[in-house]
Amino acid sequence: MAEDTMKLVLIRHGESEWNKLNLFTGWTDVELSETGEKEAAAGGRALKEAGFDFDICYTSRLKRAIHTLNFVLKEMDREWLPVVKSWKLNERHYGALQGLNKADAAAEHGDEQVKIWRRSFDICPPELEPGDERDPHTQEQYRDVAPDQLPYTECLKDTIARAWPFFEDEIRPQMLAGKRVLIAAHGNSLRSLVMKFEKMTPEQILEVNIPTGVPLVYTFDRDFNVVDKQYIGDPETIAAKINAVANQGKAKK
Amino acid sequence: MAEDTMKLVLIRHGESEWNKLNLFTGWTDVELSETGEKEAAAGGRALKEAGFDFDICYTSRLKRAIHTLNFVLKEMDREWLPVVKSWKLNERHYGALQGLNKADAAAEHGDEQVKIWRRSFDICPPELEPGDERDPHTQEQYRDVAPDQLPYTECLKDTIARAWPFFEDEIRPQMLAGKRVLIAAHGNSLRSLVMKFEKMTPEQILEVNIPTGVPLVYTFDRDFNVVDKQYIGDPETIAAKINAVANQGKAKK
Repeated sequence: MAEDTMKLVLIRHGESEWNKLNLFTGWTDVELSETGEKEAAAGGRALKEAGFDFDICYTSRLKRAIHTLNFVLKEMDREWLPVVKSWKLNERHYGALQGLNKADAAAEHGDEQVKIWRRSFDICPPELEPGDERDPHTQEQYRDVAPDQLPYTECLKDTIARAWPFFEDEIRPQMLAGKRVLIAAHGNSLRSLVMKFEKMTPEQILEVNIPTGVPLVYTFDRDFNVVDKQYIGDPETIAAKINAVANQGKAKK
Repeated sequence: MAEDTMKLVLIRHGESEWNKLNLFTGWTDVELSETGEKEAAAGGRALKEAGFDFDICYTSRLKRAIHTLNFVLKEMDREWLPVVKSWKLNERHYGALQGLNKADAAAEHGDEQVKIWRRSFDICPPELEPGDERDPHTQEQYRDVAPDQLPYTECLKDTIARAWPFFEDEIRPQMLAGKRVLIAAHGNSLRSLVMKFEKMTPEQILEVNIPTGVPLVYTFDRDFNVVDKQYIGDPETIAAKINAVANQGKAKK
């Protein structure tokens, strides 16, 4: 029975320096805060204690996800595992809002408009001007990516349009070949996967908030139907984190 | 002219916790010391200041090399680069001497014998007993490697026999395709490459000591003849490090 199923572990990076400052982050390559580092290490210890092991890991090109993975692997004594870093697992690009304080964005564009950009499935924040220092076409980090693939802004639908094919083309074949996979990524790139795994509607995925630093384990059958889903770690901590994320979402509305 | 040449940067990991204790390390997966971490970061800063950049990085499966690479990439703001970790770039395996204090090894086997194991090209230290906890066949870290490829002990000739084909088959094609390559590895896996690059005899390579944490840049023509070789960083620091390594070699004889 167990051989007919496959597990996949997702972990969302912990608090970053810009989360603390309440800035729109997106593709801005900010560091984890000290709290974020501790969250990542705790996630790694939880996986180790629960007996998890991996064969290959995936992360984004953003250091808050890469460092989260490094902390997890350090706790698991698995720093020698292969790691693939893809921009297709990056956070949703926040366009011209990147770097703005959330209060300033509301003052400039109005509360309602900002809520729409934050919470709609297919309405994008304003595009960056080409050549803006925040434009990925100008950034060394994406110099090997075909220009027509790089965004000036993204809605969740756009993030799904790059993250899901990456899963289908790169990660799923590894799982079908028997590899145990860990993905360390971001709120919206992980949501993209979760929506597809659970066959959710746009309305449903917008209600999903993945807690930070808590490993989320999906079990699939060979047809990639979800047969189980669970968080790994201390149940009280997990419940508190899920609540915190849900309340944060509410406060921001 | 510049387009007809290719550069390759090698960096040897800095001081490890076991270097400090004067233990035979080999494949033992020890941490960098604080000094070693600083050496690695200084190497990264030197590369950045000299204007170097990379497209792909290679390292071993041992954390002292992986961490060295991480420190270098952090200083260069290049943590998003692809990194390939291969056991074929591991340090020379030191067989049954691994974990012994160098003085204890001399007391047990005699000074002359230990000197032969340390300094000969093709005489191996005693083999590990199969199943020994130091036997890579029993270690998770090498669980995906074909058992007949894994050593119970190695002389430098054996290290070359795995490191050089890895360079030829995996790294050289990347360079010929125009990729700028950085390799963070170990005294003897780097020596293996240097011997082949410079067409040295066994006697010659045994006299070569690569300083720790100092980027070593080779420039090749398209036929992989060495046209230039230089260390990157502050000339006084480099001279002091080269001297230190050379004297250490003498003292140990």
